[in-house]
Amino acid sequence: MSSFEELLKQFDNHFSRRHFPTSPATLYDPAEYILGIGGKRIRPVLCLMGNELFDSIRPDAFEVATAIELFHNFTLIHDDIMDKAPLRRGKATVHAKYGENSALLAGDVMLTMAYEYLNKIELTYLRKIVSLFNKTVLEVSEGQQLDMDFEQRDEVSLEEYIQMITLKTSVLLAASLKTGAMLGGASQGNSDHLYRFGKNLGIAFQVQDDYLDAFGDPAKFGKQVGGDILSNKKTFLLLRTLETISPAQKEHLLYLMKENPADKVEQVLAIMRAAHADQWAKDLKDHYLSLALQNLEDVAVLANRKGPLRDLASFLVQREY
Amino acid sequence: MSSFEELLKQFDNHFSRRHFPTSPATLYDPAEYILGIGGKRIRPVLCLMGNELFDSIRPDAFEVATAIELFHNFTLIHDDIMDKAPLRRGKATVHAKYGENSALLAGDVMLTMAYEYLNKIELTYLRKIVSLFNKTVLEVSEGQQLDMDFEQRDEVSLEEYIQMITLKTSVLLAASLKTGAMLGGASQGNSDHLYRFGKNLGIAFQVQDDYLDAFGDPAKFGKQVGGDILSNKKTFLLLRTLETISPAQKEHLLYLMKENPADKVEQVLAIMRAAHADQWAKDLKDHYLSLALQNLEDVAVLANRKGPLRDLASFLVQREY
Repeated sequence: MSSFEELLKQFDNHFSRRHFPTSPATLYDPAEYILGIGGKRIRPVLCLMGNELFDSIRPDAFEVATAIELFHNFTLIHDDIMDKAPLRRGKATVHAKYGENSALLAGDVMLTMAYEYLNKIELTYLRKIVSLFNKTVLEVSEGQQLDMDFEQRDEVSLEEYIQMITLKTSVLLAASLKTGAMLGGASQGNSDHLYRFGKNLGIAFQVQDDYLDAFGDPAKFGKQVGGDILSNKKTFLLLRTLETISPAQKEHLLYLMKENPADKVEQVLAIMRAAHADQWAKDLKDHYLSLALQNLEDVAVLANRKGPLRDLASFLVQREY
Repeated sequence: MSSFEELLKQFDNHFSRRHFPTSPATLYDPAEYILGIGGKRIRPVLCLMGNELFDSIRPDAFEVATAIELFHNFTLIHDDIMDKAPLRRGKATVHAKYGENSALLAGDVMLTMAYEYLNKIELTYLRKIVSLFNKTVLEVSEGQQLDMDFEQRDEVSLEEYIQMITLKTSVLLAASLKTGAMLGGASQGNSDHLYRFGKNLGIAFQVQDDYLDAFGDPAKFGKQVGGDILSNKKTFLLLRTLETISPAQKEHLLYLMKENPADKVEQVLAIMRAAHADQWAKDLKDHYLSLALQNLEDVAVLANRKGPLRDLASFLVQREY
């Protein structure tokens, strides 16, 4: 069994090359640009790991992993347009660099190229893999739409938020693992367990992400701590806090969100702490992580084959940066 | 052999139903909306005609025709965002009605749903049809990008314009016919002839469209005559006129394009007529139409099977509205 790092290296060897024609450059350079600014490549490596759980890695797994990474970058390009984000991985976003129209089209050809890679795999698997891929594209789009809808709403329940996060983030992690498993000849039952592992891991990861944005160590965390609070983002912490505090505290919190005083972050953090949202988030993360590990346990392969996935899960969810 | 109208009716029976889930409505209603405002459905019917040229129509042809019509609507949604177009078929465009972000996502799920329909066809054809479809999606995107690039440039050659039109419009007509032919068991040679028929017919159609926008009978032409002239659109007529007039006439024409006097349309039309661009366009249209009809001639099936395609070609290109 290979570690995440070993598979990442294998994937990078396969992936680090031009994926689009050179002309017209006005269309394809923006698409190549985002692929060149890096990324953690978690999803394609999950596909390879899902594959290796059941068999030695098949060449087709690299095609599917490539399709998944292109799809992921497609969502980044289009989401950044929608969110009007100026930066991605510390670099200008595609639309900031090339304009919105070129970014829109670059996303479109990125998605199409994903389907072109999928179209290379063995016929035996083609229809089933494409079907799961299509379902996932629709779900991720639903998640993005719900995320935008929620920003316009005053009240969002935790249940709705978890559903949104599941669609926007988790189902792609889950599908990455499952497509790999399918190519490895996994049974329906085993590939479904692995899918659920990815789904629950994704939720745990997002809880952790929300937690770190508020309570993380600025020295370790990479981005500005308190960014979500400053932008009034509806996170796990904010939704939980709003659900549990007194009417007077709620009024004060809504005042802070509206008026943005200089010490907004400190004040909001104090309210969150008083509501024990920090401990609640840790417990929630542990809950989803243990669900995920149970799902992994349920996959009927020898325990030692699961080592790398167990390690990755702990790494993703325990990280402090 | 069925006429266009008969096949249109068959396609409509198949196509006129909901294609997307109902929830979230904020995502899928915009996608259903554009399908509900109609359209001539030329491309899916071309797919059925390409199929019937070689065999009785197969159920798979309806799946591919549906995918093609969804893809066409995907391009309309995204192009309308890029062109900031307020109206489409006399109704509000998707982004005008639902906002740009929802329109962007509605386009994304429309393209994905096209792939979902393609994924239903017989395995024997699946890889080849998807491969042609992917190639076509990339080419149509290239055409849209070139169209936007050309609007920013002072000089565009006729050759470049024909290449752009071929990508933006013709290859989809061509691919619609060819996918139908492939499903009908056509030989490589025959399906290639049919592809070229669609490509040349598309160019003839665009020449005609540019011609009618300038010289059409306002009573018969559904939209404002002179619209292209008012917006300085680089059409066949404008490019030809610019290539053939004297430096003094060119200076005057560029002055009209820049200053937009009240009688701009009349004055530009007079210059185009003096340059014989109207007659040249008619000749050019006839040239591409006759190429197309020769391509159709080259398809090795009994001549009487080709009747409906010949009729459609004449109808599309000779129309005065």
